[in-house]
Parts: sequence; C-alpha cells; structure tokens
Amino acid sequence: QCNLTGSWVNDFGSNMTINAVNGRGEFNGTYHTSVADNPNAIQKSPLQGFQHISEQPTIQQPTFGFTVKWNFSESTSVFVGQCFVDKHGQETLKTVWLMRLRVNNIHDNWQATR
Amino acid sequence: QCNLTGSWVNDFGSNMTINAVNGRGEFNGTYHTSVADNPNAIQKSPLQGFQHISEQPTIQQPTFGFTVKWNFSESTSVFVGQCFVDKHGQETLKTVWLMRLRVNNIHDNWQATR
Amino acid sequence: QCNLTGSWVNDFGSNMTINAVNGRGEFNGTYHTSVADNPNAIQKSPLQGFQHISEQPTIQQPTFGFTVKWNFSESTSVFVGQCFVDKHGQETLKTVWLMRLRVNNIHDNWQATR
Amino acid sequence: QCNLTGSWVNDFGSNMTINAVNGRGEFNGTYHTSVADNPNAIQKSPLQGFQHISEQPTIQQPTFGFTVKWNFSESTSVFVGQCFVDKHGQETLKTVWLMRLRVNNIHDNWQATR
Repeated sequence: QCNLTGSWVNDFGSNMTINAVNGRGEFNGTYHTSVADNPNAIQKSPLQGFQHISEQPTIQQPTFGFTVKWNFSESTSVFVGQCFVDKHGQETLKTVWLMRLRVNNIHDNWQATR
Repeated sequence: QCNLTGSWVNDFGSNMTINAVNGRGEFNGTYHTSVADNPNAIQKSPLQGFQHISEQPTIQQPTFGFTVKWNFSESTSVFVGQCFVDKHGQETLKTVWLMRLRVNNIHDNWQATR
Repeated sequence: QCNLTGSWVNDFGSNMTINAVNGRGEFNGTYHTSVADNPNAIQKSPLQGFQHISEQPTIQQPTFGFTVKWNFSESTSVFVGQCFVDKHGQETLKTVWLMRLRVNNIHDNWQATR
Repeated sequence: QCNLTGSWVNDFGSNMTINAVNGRGEFNGTYHTSVADNPNAIQKSPLQGFQHISEQPTIQQPTFGFTVKWNFSESTSVFVGQCFVDKHGQETLKTVWLMRLRVNNIHDNWQATR
C-alpha cells in the first residue's frame, strides 16, 4: 500500500518529511517550502493530517490530507490528494492546496484564500 | 482571542466539535456532515489540524486548517479559514474546503477534487 | 428555463447586468463589484460567457460560465455556476469564482490565483 | 506582447485554438479536451473570453480568462491564467480551471464544482 511516510519533493523544490502513519491514519511531519511571499523568512513548519488506511490490501492508493502551520507567517495551508503507485512500484503524490492569509477585517475575507 | 474549541454549525447544518487547542496550536475533534454522496451512510468522522496561537493578545483572529478523514467513504476533506470576532464578541469561522475522492487510476486525477 | 438575462445582486452587494443570451448560449454584460483591493478605483467592467441552452424544456437549470476583464486593474476573474429555479419560480445563481492577478515573474505564479 | 492567438497544447494533451484577439481583448476559439467523464463522447467545444491588452508595451504578460461550453455534456468550464514569455521569447500559459456539473437539485450544489 502506498504510504506517506518518508521524504517527498514537489515540482517547485519544496520538500516534506512525514513520520510514521499510525493505525488511525494519523501522521505528522515537517514542511520546508521553497516559495513564499517573504522567501528570506522561510523556516521549516509543522504539518499533521490523515491518510486512509485500507483493510483491503487490494486498495492501495489512499487519499490523504494535511495542514501546515507556517512558522514564519500567520498563514495556514491545507493540502489534499491521493497517493498513486505505478506498475514499477513508484509512488507519486497528486495534491492540490489552499493557503489562507490572515486579514484584519471580515470584509476582506473574499480575497484571503489563495 | 478567537479559539476553535467548542461546537460549530455551518449553513448546511453540518456540525463539528473541536477539543482543546494545545500550546502548539494542535487540535482534534469530530465532524458530522449533513451532506454526502451517500447520505444514509453518514457517520461522525475524526478531524485534526492547527490554529495559529498569537503571543500578541491584540491579534485575535487566527487562521486555521484541519483535515477530516471520512469514516464512511475513502474520501478526505481539508478546510482552511480564519476565526473572526465581531464587536459584540461573537465568533464566526469563514472557511473554504476541498474534498478529494479516491480514483482508481492516475489518469482520472484531474477530476478527483471537488 | 432559467435564463441569465437580467440584473443580479450577490451577497456582497456586487451587481451585474446580463444582456440577451443568443441561440448559441453566448451572452455579454457588465459587472460592478463591491469588493476590490483598491475600492476607490472600482469601475464597471465587461463580462462575457456561455450558458447551456437546452433543447429539452424539462431541463430548466443550466450551467454557465463567464469572464470579467477588470477595467481598473490588470486582473481577470472567471465565474462558473448553475441557475436554479425554486418551486415559486424564483431564480438563484450558485456561483464560484477565481481571480487571477498579474505577477511579474513566472516564479510567482503559485500565488497569483485567489 | 504575449498574445493568446494560436494553438496551444496542455500537459494532458488537450489542445485549443484561439482566433484573433480584438481591440477590447475579446477572443473566441475551440477547445478539444483529452479528458472527460465520458471520453467516447468528446467533441470540440466553443470557448470565448478576454485577455488584457496593455497600452504599455513594457507590460508583456497579460492575464486572461475564458469559458468553455462543452458540446457533449451539460457542464461548463472556466479557465483563468496568465501568459508568460521567457528570455528566449517562448510563450507559456499558466492556467487554473473549474468545471461546473449540472445537478438536479440545489441541495447538491455543494458537490457540483470540480
């Protein structure tokens, strides 16, 4: 079964490390982004989330999601995706994300998600 | 400071309960959705995530994010948003979400996020 | 059949006017937003798009999409949704949108969509 | 200036042809997708939208948006993005999209956008 535990690099050069996934599908880890509004300030940031754990060994490509609390800003990002295994056993994560910026006033809420 | 701990109901009638937020901003809880592809199967599902914790008491409206692992499907959802407090002290969460469905083949990845 | 022609107001107080929808489902009109990065600069802006036209009169709730070229910025927005009719014949548009900001460099592309 | 007129192929093998962009930034064309819920039914479909036209020749990388009315389904898609030119003069479009499916009932609206 495709498992999130390990180190991953995305197309932008960001990388993340995910620790052991427990029996409830919970995991945590760290995310080191390569892109930011303020690149000089980038620090490794904690992540935590869930992946599905299948009782059926034939279902090998679970969906997952996780939250990153950025240590160097007041923003929070979420990622959701699925782990795919190709015929050579190579694992790939396909993921989409949303980033939430803090705004001072609820009237600016409309433009706070990227 | 606006804090996620407690019970929340959204405009669709879904409700969630969030337990204590610890000093690192971590929390967990349960999400009981009112909408699903297969409404008869709905079960309460676990969630976990982060909210920002401010050292500055003047910054009272933190961003947050969390993941829900649906117990009754192979999908995973993520929510990201900000907690706002109005002048009467009333807290409101403004949130956007993505839901990831499991697909059998990476070629169907393009249509797996809602 | 639910038809986009007419004047519409959204929950933010933005309003739009859509002219006649032709036989190919094409329409144009103007969008007057109530929210912007630079509110003082807001001007009415042109929109154009498509709605589905059904040959079957029983299918009364078409999907649609349109683009707004903002006259007061270098951004472009797209809206996509569906027109619903309730049992009293009242029409409601349910819509989601994306706004694209211009960035100077392709390396900032990741954060240019809101 | 980066101009949308011409033929484009995306990473999935979908291709589109965009006709002349007029002085107001309007264009139309056709989109031939390589991916669909019902691949056997795929037909070329019309698109129309806007790109920004700059009076300042130094601003060469406009944002744009367009709507595709799928001829083989009741769905509508919107695309929004920016045209980038690299130092060799090569043009690239960076685009995100939303697809709206028709649902029978407004209560299913929450899951109709992909």
